[in-house]
Amino acid sequence: MTNKQTSNSILENIRVVLVRPIYGGNVGSVCRAMANNGLKHLVLVDPHDLNMDNARSMACWAQSNLKNMRIVQTLAEATSDCAMICGATARLGLYRLHSHAPREIAGQILSAAENGKAAIVFGPEDNGLSNDDIALCTHLTQIPSTPEYSSLNLSHAVAICAYEIYTATGSFQPSEEKSPPAQAKFREKMFEIWKSALLDIGFMKEDKAQHMMLGIRRALSRGVRTEDDVKIMMGVARQVQWCASQLKKRNKTENQ
Amino acid sequence: MTNKQTSNSILENIRVVLVRPIYGGNVGSVCRAMANNGLKHLVLVDPHDLNMDNARSMACWAQSNLKNMRIVQTLAEATSDCAMICGATARLGLYRLHSHAPREIAGQILSAAENGKAAIVFGPEDNGLSNDDIALCTHLTQIPSTPEYSSLNLSHAVAICAYEIYTATGSFQPSEEKSPPAQAKFREKMFEIWKSALLDIGFMKEDKAQHMMLGIRRALSRGVRTEDDVKIMMGVARQVQWCASQLKKRNKTENQ
Repeated sequence: MTNKQTSNSILENIRVVLVRPIYGGNVGSVCRAMANNGLKHLVLVDPHDLNMDNARSMACWAQSNLKNMRIVQTLAEATSDCAMICGATARLGLYRLHSHAPREIAGQILSAAENGKAAIVFGPEDNGLSNDDIALCTHLTQIPSTPEYSSLNLSHAVAICAYEIYTATGSFQPSEEKSPPAQAKFREKMFEIWKSALLDIGFMKEDKAQHMMLGIRRALSRGVRTEDDVKIMMGVARQVQWCASQLKKRNKTENQ
Repeated sequence: MTNKQTSNSILENIRVVLVRPIYGGNVGSVCRAMANNGLKHLVLVDPHDLNMDNARSMACWAQSNLKNMRIVQTLAEATSDCAMICGATARLGLYRLHSHAPREIAGQILSAAENGKAAIVFGPEDNGLSNDDIALCTHLTQIPSTPEYSSLNLSHAVAICAYEIYTATGSFQPSEEKSPPAQAKFREKMFEIWKSALLDIGFMKEDKAQHMMLGIRRALSRGVRTEDDVKIMMGVARQVQWCASQLKKRNKTENQ
């Protein structure tokens, strides 16, 4: 799935549901995490008395997600038109063992959202989703964490699930080196110039040059990867050569 | 890498560095995200006047990460003993194009941390890492996000990188169904009982049974996956049979 239009319309079908959230700051942070990952629809189920100043402050540039959020009284109401309902749970128990990692579930959520509405559901900060909430979920996800501290901040949990869903759309274009990878023949030209330059400045003598160049090659081969890298390191060697030739001239003049 | 002891000692070698952080709440949230993912060492570089009440509140049960954090004056000082230094950047530019997704970089960080110290470095909330900061980094990572809103909350950025690193250790044990997957012969036994039960209660007649069972099979085959699932659905059918037989008896008695 790489078409941007398509992935946008699929993300449009995914809803984030927060059940009985307590802190306005978390709700705002959730709005921001959603916006970072192309999700727009937030539904709160029976929220506590939220501090909306904190919510607005943490939402940052994602105010539209906050303004457009819906508030309903039950999880059933929040998800009644959804085919797939995925609850996030940190606790395990008899009826929570069929959970999957967010990375596994992300693709299923996108598939479900191609043809209908899908919801990812997060419980309150203190206790997570209740068994009654879990009963309404068709799927469960458990976010990896150490057994020593498995309770995630609510907005972190949403951020990780939203990140996995967005990543799974394949629509993110990672940065790309504009300079193509350097080919060996170009790199070898650089090493020739380095060799001359290092001989010119007396860093090594001709009889040890082959040996000394092995160390230089080892150091430069791994870091110097693109044509731009090679050009820069070639330029350095050429300038060293120029400097050595100037010194030679100066010495000649002084000795005349 | 699945040995828990080994992965703990590797995570012990990974440091989170926050450069010139502004908000105490974010620093606290970072501590929690680190603890969720087995990271313990936080270093702040030249922090603003942080609200430590907010930090403590957001750190939640990760107070030890907050208490043990070090404060230094320069990024060079924070990373001087590190072999690998990976900066997180949202912006792109001439010298930021060689960045990799957190998922790609996580394995490299773990490799580096097997034999020495590694740092993941995050810039201030308002502007991110400067070019001078970037100059000290051996690697860069860019977290996937929509082009419409690519600036992540600081603690979300840390949470996602820490989650990728922890996931890459392979030490998280996802929940596992205790009940084995149901084999066809067991499922077929269930369908036989369902068939009898549905005939008993008059849901279908013998001549249509084969056809009607196709719908029942379709509905039950996909959801009923484990032996426990089969046992539950068998139990339902048996109870239906019992109920039908009781009704039959009652009718007989009444008709006598």
